[in-house]
Amino acid sequence: MSDDAQAGSQGLTHLDAQGHAHMVDVSEKAITRREAVAEAFITIAPDVLALIASGETPKGDVLATARIAGIMGAKRTSDLIPLCHPLPLSSVKVTLDIQKSGIAISARARTTGQTGIEMEALTAVSVAALTLYDMCKALDRGMVIGDIRLAHKSGGRSGVYDRPADA
Amino acid sequence: MSDDAQAGSQGLTHLDAQGHAHMVDVSEKAITRREAVAEAFITIAPDVLALIASGETPKGDVLATARIAGIMGAKRTSDLIPLCHPLPLSSVKVTLDIQKSGIAISARARTTGQTGIEMEALTAVSVAALTLYDMCKALDRGMVIGDIRLAHKSGGRSGVYDRPADA
Amino acid sequence: MSDDAQAGSQGLTHLDAQGHAHMVDVSEKAITRREAVAEAFITIAPDVLALIASGETPKGDVLATARIAGIMGAKRTSDLIPLCHPLPLSSVKVTLDIQKSGIAISARARTTGQTGIEMEALTAVSVAALTLYDMCKALDRGMVIGDIRLAHKSGGRSGVYDRPADA
Amino acid sequence: MSDDAQAGSQGLTHLDAQGHAHMVDVSEKAITRREAVAEAFITIAPDVLALIASGETPKGDVLATARIAGIMGAKRTSDLIPLCHPLPLSSVKVTLDIQKSGIAISARARTTGQTGIEMEALTAVSVAALTLYDMCKALDRGMVIGDIRLAHKSGGRSGVYDRPADA
Amino acid sequence: MSDDAQAGSQGLTHLDAQGHAHMVDVSEKAITRREAVAEAFITIAPDVLALIASGETPKGDVLATARIAGIMGAKRTSDLIPLCHPLPLSSVKVTLDIQKSGIAISARARTTGQTGIEMEALTAVSVAALTLYDMCKALDRGMVIGDIRLAHKSGGRSGVYDRPADA
Amino acid sequence: MSDDAQAGSQGLTHLDAQGHAHMVDVSEKAITRREAVAEAFITIAPDVLALIASGETPKGDVLATARIAGIMGAKRTSDLIPLCHPLPLSSVKVTLDIQKSGIAISARARTTGQTGIEMEALTAVSVAALTLYDMCKALDRGMVIGDIRLAHKSGGRSGVYDRPADA
Repeated sequence: MSDDAQAGSQGLTHLDAQGHAHMVDVSEKAITRREAVAEAFITIAPDVLALIASGETPKGDVLATARIAGIMGAKRTSDLIPLCHPLPLSSVKVTLDIQKSGIAISARARTTGQTGIEMEALTAVSVAALTLYDMCKALDRGMVIGDIRLAHKSGGRSGVYDRPADA
Repeated sequence: MSDDAQAGSQGLTHLDAQGHAHMVDVSEKAITRREAVAEAFITIAPDVLALIASGETPKGDVLATARIAGIMGAKRTSDLIPLCHPLPLSSVKVTLDIQKSGIAISARARTTGQTGIEMEALTAVSVAALTLYDMCKALDRGMVIGDIRLAHKSGGRSGVYDRPADA
Repeated sequence: MSDDAQAGSQGLTHLDAQGHAHMVDVSEKAITRREAVAEAFITIAPDVLALIASGETPKGDVLATARIAGIMGAKRTSDLIPLCHPLPLSSVKVTLDIQKSGIAISARARTTGQTGIEMEALTAVSVAALTLYDMCKALDRGMVIGDIRLAHKSGGRSGVYDRPADA
Repeated sequence: MSDDAQAGSQGLTHLDAQGHAHMVDVSEKAITRREAVAEAFITIAPDVLALIASGETPKGDVLATARIAGIMGAKRTSDLIPLCHPLPLSSVKVTLDIQKSGIAISARARTTGQTGIEMEALTAVSVAALTLYDMCKALDRGMVIGDIRLAHKSGGRSGVYDRPADA
Repeated sequence: MSDDAQAGSQGLTHLDAQGHAHMVDVSEKAITRREAVAEAFITIAPDVLALIASGETPKGDVLATARIAGIMGAKRTSDLIPLCHPLPLSSVKVTLDIQKSGIAISARARTTGQTGIEMEALTAVSVAALTLYDMCKALDRGMVIGDIRLAHKSGGRSGVYDRPADA
Repeated sequence: MSDDAQAGSQGLTHLDAQGHAHMVDVSEKAITRREAVAEAFITIAPDVLALIASGETPKGDVLATARIAGIMGAKRTSDLIPLCHPLPLSSVKVTLDIQKSGIAISARARTTGQTGIEMEALTAVSVAALTLYDMCKALDRGMVIGDIRLAHKSGGRSGVYDRPADA
């Protein structure tokens, strides 16, 4: 059952009975430990990817910059997403994995609070991907950011969610 | 030739000779009128999509919320992307198009300045997509945001760029 | 008795004994569920008001933009008001009512915390009003925003406050 | 004629032909020196007003805090008002005048740019008023903020505007 | 023993096993009342210092502006310091003391949370010092900000820390 | 002659005739290319310094995090310093140099605008230093940040300033 189970019958929880956007009331929800993992992928031309992967220091700074931007982006989530509740993040970790056709990005966020932390994890991977785009855009304008999605979620009434393997 | 043409030989422009991240110097660049168009797509389950599309007011607020979040996100670009220059945006427009399997998002940003405005357009579509995700996530956890890419760019030394049709 | 009852004898609670501004210490206060409702009114010329009220889509976006700005403004309260404590908002709802001479704005904010949430509700109506002003200012420069006030407050030591009907 | 004169016939300039909110394009506008003066008034109970007015240091800090909050608020205008363009403020001055029934607030903002600066001046007085409210709210919950309006505007195609004396 | 005692053997806690920056997980830590006091000193030329110290109102506004900037800076700490957790500040107090060769700055911050509040106190004194610099820089370019350090800390596993007198 | 030469006789430029803080009017100033270099030093215990200096990846991320925080901090300067004008930064570069007793930090900022850019350079070194403190504080609580000062400045009416060698 969904964490926002009332949505099942009523439809979109972020709209009230008149269809107006509001920040849903979470004051009755239990305070539980929550975790979310999100993913993204950015395709990058092989020669640019090679530039990032080779050489010790440049690699450090390109990837470090993206990791830090993702972490800082997670902290700005409720500033960016209009109906998102502010949450006290207890940890964020952004992982970057250079693959054949681009870089796989993953973010794991944790909190102890009354509402889920998916948006923080999704914002972290999005901002990390945009930062990689920014750093490589002078060399490759054909980059595409995609596969931004929730991989895992736990905590709250809805229990554990794991993305189906074939999704 | 690239707007940051010196990158062609040196590699990643956002790293200095030691491989350290820095905000590149644009003070010698000409002030020109610049435009960028970016795109994204979010897949949404058909029944949730139907909920957004049907009914007058809810549709207004869901899509309006995403449009506004995208516009406001564009204004926060240089706060989010570490090495991005602050730019005086002269216009931002976010367009949402409900399609069979999801919503196509497009953003056009304009400025008159010394550096390109791609990141603002890309940030606008990313934040609009994340906002749609947030508003629908109680109904569909399988949504995927993808195809975030630059469609068009003009202004600056590099001239006009249009994404190849088959890319 | 006031939530900051010690102010009764000492005067302004946000000043210390030397008259210097400081953020008052709330660490001894109980964590309680708190709610505040604030109101505002913006006078708008009848023909402009008619433009907002008539037509389905424009109405949606003008009012939706103001509602969302109010909600996002509430989340920025402690960034704007120097001595205001950061608070974990558990819900915000902004309501707009088109009346004969303008638009009545109301905001209800809730939290579970150690200090009151009036400023968040007051900031929400103020930012919503400023946003309406911004969207209509090309048509009417004589708009006036007024009647920004607290309508209701509950939670904390001071108990329930309801604005007297004739105030 | 309005600075956004095309609005005269088309209606609300912040909505496009489909009624969707967008940030209007100012890239064709001339860069001119622009100024705006906005006003507000906050009614405060006489005994609280006396506390603010009497005593040297407290007065300094209450009024100084409100002045600084107003100036800083002006700098955040485009973060708060969704369709407002970011502007390079060249000066902001907030003036507070203790009167019989409250405090009159005035803000003058200047810029050299492509769009008007009314919203910065209006945001300055609004944030200054909210800050006074915050500092006095433990002593007086009946305060009302009102008369937030544009007093003067110059620069841009629309020329000089001065609020009619009887408005 | 340190609050982050595991660091003793492992080294830098903000880096994971691969040496990548992350926001450390505090979700297992106890929620305790925490306090930190930080200090700074800014040297200012005697004649400029005399200008600040003499005259009632100017003194009020220069020092008030720095105090308020310090308080507001403390609230922005987790926005500025990449790996810093957001914390619900329960109080901040900034104290300025005009001395013979400059101004001594002190900040005391308190919270009830899962992680320490040193960075908020250190950010408060740093921003207050930078604000004093900004206000005096037209008269004295030789100012130096120094002695930014932790004076006291309590709460959390590591217990009380007081800076050695001779440090 | 000072860039704010009128300050010579009048005293503190950020206060008006009544001693009230305001953002000084720069609209009459010429738009010139401006540069500022600021410095800071953070003392760190030798064993912690060795941890940062040794090992390839950790070093990359600790120093990269501080560099990026400094750059991003420079972009937030006018948000943090109450009377500071917003400026379109055209470049920022933060340099870290591991020395015997700590890390020397330097930042060079450039803009083309109507007012100086010292505060951006000083904010960059301050935030970079605070970030180093944050990352090392579990290992060394005795760190001291100092010697935050302007090393060089050019552009504007006041011409070139270079800090005297013995200052």
